[in-house]
Amino acid sequence: MVDIATRVYNHSWKIDPIIRSVLDTDFYKLLMAQTIFRRHRDVAVTFGIQNRTTRVRLADYIDIGELREQLDHVRTLRLSRGESTWLRGNTFYGKRQMFSPDFVAWLESFRYPDYELERVDGQYELTFHGPWIETTMWEIPSLAILNELRSRGVTKGMGKFELQVMYARAMTRVWEKIQRLKNLPNLSISDFGTRRRHGFLWQDWCVQAMIEGLGPAFTGTSNCLIALRREVEAIGTNAHELPMVYAALADTDAETLQAPYDVLADWQEDYQGNLLVILPDTYGTTRFLRNAPEWVSSWTGIRVDSKDPFEGGEEAIDWWLARGEDPMKKLVIFSDGLDIDLIERLHRHFHGRVRLGYGWGTLLTNDFRGLVPDGKLDPISIVCKVVSADGRPTVKLSDNPTKAMGPRSEVERYRRLFEFAERAPQPVLV
Amino acid sequence: MVDIATRVYNHSWKIDPIIRSVLDTDFYKLLMAQTIFRRHRDVAVTFGIQNRTTRVRLADYIDIGELREQLDHVRTLRLSRGESTWLRGNTFYGKRQMFSPDFVAWLESFRYPDYELERVDGQYELTFHGPWIETTMWEIPSLAILNELRSRGVTKGMGKFELQVMYARAMTRVWEKIQRLKNLPNLSISDFGTRRRHGFLWQDWCVQAMIEGLGPAFTGTSNCLIALRREVEAIGTNAHELPMVYAALADTDAETLQAPYDVLADWQEDYQGNLLVILPDTYGTTRFLRNAPEWVSSWTGIRVDSKDPFEGGEEAIDWWLARGEDPMKKLVIFSDGLDIDLIERLHRHFHGRVRLGYGWGTLLTNDFRGLVPDGKLDPISIVCKVVSADGRPTVKLSDNPTKAMGPRSEVERYRRLFEFAERAPQPVLV
Repeated sequence: MVDIATRVYNHSWKIDPIIRSVLDTDFYKLLMAQTIFRRHRDVAVTFGIQNRTTRVRLADYIDIGELREQLDHVRTLRLSRGESTWLRGNTFYGKRQMFSPDFVAWLESFRYPDYELERVDGQYELTFHGPWIETTMWEIPSLAILNELRSRGVTKGMGKFELQVMYARAMTRVWEKIQRLKNLPNLSISDFGTRRRHGFLWQDWCVQAMIEGLGPAFTGTSNCLIALRREVEAIGTNAHELPMVYAALADTDAETLQAPYDVLADWQEDYQGNLLVILPDTYGTTRFLRNAPEWVSSWTGIRVDSKDPFEGGEEAIDWWLARGEDPMKKLVIFSDGLDIDLIERLHRHFHGRVRLGYGWGTLLTNDFRGLVPDGKLDPISIVCKVVSADGRPTVKLSDNPTKAMGPRSEVERYRRLFEFAERAPQPVLV
Repeated sequence: MVDIATRVYNHSWKIDPIIRSVLDTDFYKLLMAQTIFRRHRDVAVTFGIQNRTTRVRLADYIDIGELREQLDHVRTLRLSRGESTWLRGNTFYGKRQMFSPDFVAWLESFRYPDYELERVDGQYELTFHGPWIETTMWEIPSLAILNELRSRGVTKGMGKFELQVMYARAMTRVWEKIQRLKNLPNLSISDFGTRRRHGFLWQDWCVQAMIEGLGPAFTGTSNCLIALRREVEAIGTNAHELPMVYAALADTDAETLQAPYDVLADWQEDYQGNLLVILPDTYGTTRFLRNAPEWVSSWTGIRVDSKDPFEGGEEAIDWWLARGEDPMKKLVIFSDGLDIDLIERLHRHFHGRVRLGYGWGTLLTNDFRGLVPDGKLDPISIVCKVVSADGRPTVKLSDNPTKAMGPRSEVERYRRLFEFAERAPQPVLV
């Protein structure tokens, strides 16, 4: 029987919203937001979208009117009572009351701020100006909207069965990857795929398949809404925006150099345990580790992001050993461009030498490569990054020069300051 | 939103019925039933199940109580008003009123007769005794029930996502076959997969995928209920049971030899056009064609069943040529153990020399080979065949000795009578 009420309700939708909850975002956004809320809420920070896969002209697939409708819909959202209860009552990484009452109260009253949108050269320039605590919240929903509108644009007009078989193939592919993951001893893997997912329903499917297929080896999802609904742990730590803004706000070279460590000092006032994970690559991993204060080596782990993961993992282990720490008690989290082959190779290489964690993103929740002609659903490398703080440009160097960001002159200044050794650019898939 | 009424209705099911309609049967059963109804309705005919794939012990997967419940449920069915309207009002092969009012009236009052069921040596002995017109109706539903209960038995206990991925793989496989079929010029193919289908819903899915994927190259389905619901043509002609019963009822050798032609004589009183398709292999194709009366060569086509299809097709063409007929106006239907590779090879071989039709059965609607461990869902070769008529054993020789049926002494007698040349037995997959 058709559920008439559901059908009639669906008929009357103006749009089919992509983001339906303030919690449909990554957990690290809330963790960082709380840190920002406590210390830097009124810093004026601009975020902007950048599609690094320039060959894909997003404006060819996405109607600007539909994009506006989706973004405007996000601005109508507010945290629901049940979502607020989940944030207040849940255990995260074994800790209760990770979020303070004043932060949750702020989030309850939060509304997404306005945006600026322009179509330029087949791409969308989408920019968010305002207090850091507000603009930071746009990163994940804006990316999820652009990616899902693209998927919808590509799949529009496909036949019902053609579409079903496309999803059947994608499901089979995910499941085959999960079957291979089951063979890895002591695996800990989570979903980091919100921002570049094919779509919300698809991410939700992938998470459920991971739950059934991997059992406890699947440690959770970065997506708060899916974590709530599927009753798994919300996973995440922090990202480059913190050192980028801290460095931009610095008034002297000495303060700029100190900024990445200031981030960690603030962070460990707010969080403990598994949340004490260093992200060392914003201005080059090697120098960051070499100059890190002693207390940094007592942190739980390191997230290897833009560096070659084998090199980055070895570097972390060497560093801990040099600092008298036992790598077997330390956590190395890989999260950049992971897919099943790389995870298997990393696991073979590092298993038994260090605790391992995998944050599996785009190629978990958006691997439709080859499933439509001309690679029209191949994932793209699109980011929403902080651009300036209190009027000063922000800079990211990263271990892979392809991922460097900021005005050229500022990038040069940071390179000199951080004694950044020239590296060969690596292609960025996702 | 959950449709509460549907959920509550489903909760209260005693069983989940496999056969839900008198029309969930093959079209050829209704065509043959009308011919039987007009001439031989009261002949006492026994049908029995035979599982030729003896290594699969059906009783290990199918509970006898559940089997009884399904069979008993079939006995509660009666033709609905809408189904009756469809039979009366539909066009079949371009002809209106294919079924006479008295036959439809009979079908409206029809109830499935009783059955005998015993568990013997890990298999089920399932037998139907009674008037031919009634027992013949059991062939398709009894086979569909056994096949679907086996599928249910094998899939019981699988995880939700494991199950979804199994169907995803099966869907992908069907779709890939359809994509290959699209490349065949002037294709005419129909679904003949009711009896050995994985399940009703699956057959229905396969038919819909064929409709979307093949367009007019998909000519219809043998399943009347699916033809009604999906608004495609119901397809079918006749089967071995007609010559088998006619031969068994013969009192002299001459009458036995004449029986297969008597079937055709009766058939062409009842039907025309595309329904005039010879099934020549019951007692050996070669002799049947050689001795056939002249009027038989004017029939529309030949169904090549148990003979090697290349040999059978060539033999048909040669026969028409020898009888002064133009093969380009004739139809050759292949229907035995078809799968995509064989269809492609046959099409390459015969296309442009004769009109071609494919009746694609088990490997359309039940190809789950390799999708669960140990081939537990590989299709089996199970049949429901006429065993005796008015107390006399029936015999089938077939072009493939593996498919011969009947008591050994009777088979020998028929072989002598029909000058049946010894052939090497061929393995039977489905």
